[in-house]
Amino acid sequence: MVQYPNKKKAGPALSRNGDRHYTAHRGMNLEEDISLSNKFYLANDRAVIYKKPTPVQIVKVDYPSRNAARIIEGYYQRPSTTDYNGIYRGQYIDFEAKETRQNKFPFINIHEHQIEHLGRIKKHGGIAFVIIAFTHLQETYLIDADYVIDRYYHAEHRYMTYEEVQANGHLIRQGYQPRLYYLDVVDEVYFKECE
Amino acid sequence: MVQYPNKKKAGPALSRNGDRHYTAHRGMNLEEDISLSNKFYLANDRAVIYKKPTPVQIVKVDYPSRNAARIIEGYYQRPSTTDYNGIYRGQYIDFEAKETRQNKFPFINIHEHQIEHLGRIKKHGGIAFVIIAFTHLQETYLIDADYVIDRYYHAEHRYMTYEEVQANGHLIRQGYQPRLYYLDVVDEVYFKECE
Repeated sequence: MVQYPNKKKAGPALSRNGDRHYTAHRGMNLEEDISLSNKFYLANDRAVIYKKPTPVQIVKVDYPSRNAARIIEGYYQRPSTTDYNGIYRGQYIDFEAKETRQNKFPFINIHEHQIEHLGRIKKHGGIAFVIIAFTHLQETYLIDADYVIDRYYHAEHRYMTYEEVQANGHLIRQGYQPRLYYLDVVDEVYFKECE
Repeated sequence: MVQYPNKKKAGPALSRNGDRHYTAHRGMNLEEDISLSNKFYLANDRAVIYKKPTPVQIVKVDYPSRNAARIIEGYYQRPSTTDYNGIYRGQYIDFEAKETRQNKFPFINIHEHQIEHLGRIKKHGGIAFVIIAFTHLQETYLIDADYVIDRYYHAEHRYMTYEEVQANGHLIRQGYQPRLYYLDVVDEVYFKECE
């Protein structure tokens, strides 16, 4: 087991050594970390989880040759759902992942239709959550969709504080492979009664 | 209940009237039909199933103004997985959908990594299948992934015949809303023991 400094504690974790990839020159890249973790989980046959491609509205395509197609005009579209979904331990799993450099998670970072989508998944019996990385603290949390949905609609302010996420979410251990041990947290949170 | 002429029968179904949308001037468009069916199922809260966006490798983006981004060079990428996935009756569901104008389904229409993906989903306990539309016959079938995978690797020829799909698959009833009653077939094939 890799020793890892980011244990859950009262205050923000300080970066020491042992932190193999969130080095000063590299910076945290949550999307890449999740993608690499998913590849690792897939290679180890533990789960089949993918990021959905970014939706692009394609307006013009050029065909320089018979078999080549070059998109020469396109626009990013708002995704209909969350970024990640798949199957784990026979269950449908669905989540959104977001970074913040602040000591809070502003709800402006997540679209209302993504909140609605997470609610639908829960209602249909799936596992749904949000992964939030506080990049300046080098801490990443998994927080169940029900909590986020409740706060999204009922909190007085348009954000969740770091302390709130820390208290209601679950710190994800970081390492080399996988970079984010987020399925260990899923085991803990969603499959405890099965063990 | 809408009366519909495409009942399962020995030979190809003839198009008569009652066929509300596969009209001569319109032509069959499987992708559109599935998307509309998924929207209908979503609106009726029966399932949460989406088509994944086509993956595009974005090479150059132009920013004509601060908030606008125009992709000016991009290329289609080979998708890593199947086109559709989601949750139905608490289960992970995953499928690929393909049209053919021939009396057979050539395996060149499906990538090997998609076949592998379907196999993984089955292994992890999900529901996985292929929807095949024989457009000239105006018939669409759902066929379980295990059968397709077996044929893909073991058939002597690189296709499944129409008769083979008809015998081993399940005809999907067509209508107005949803255009393809494919979840009724899923009920029949994957949930029979639960009823």
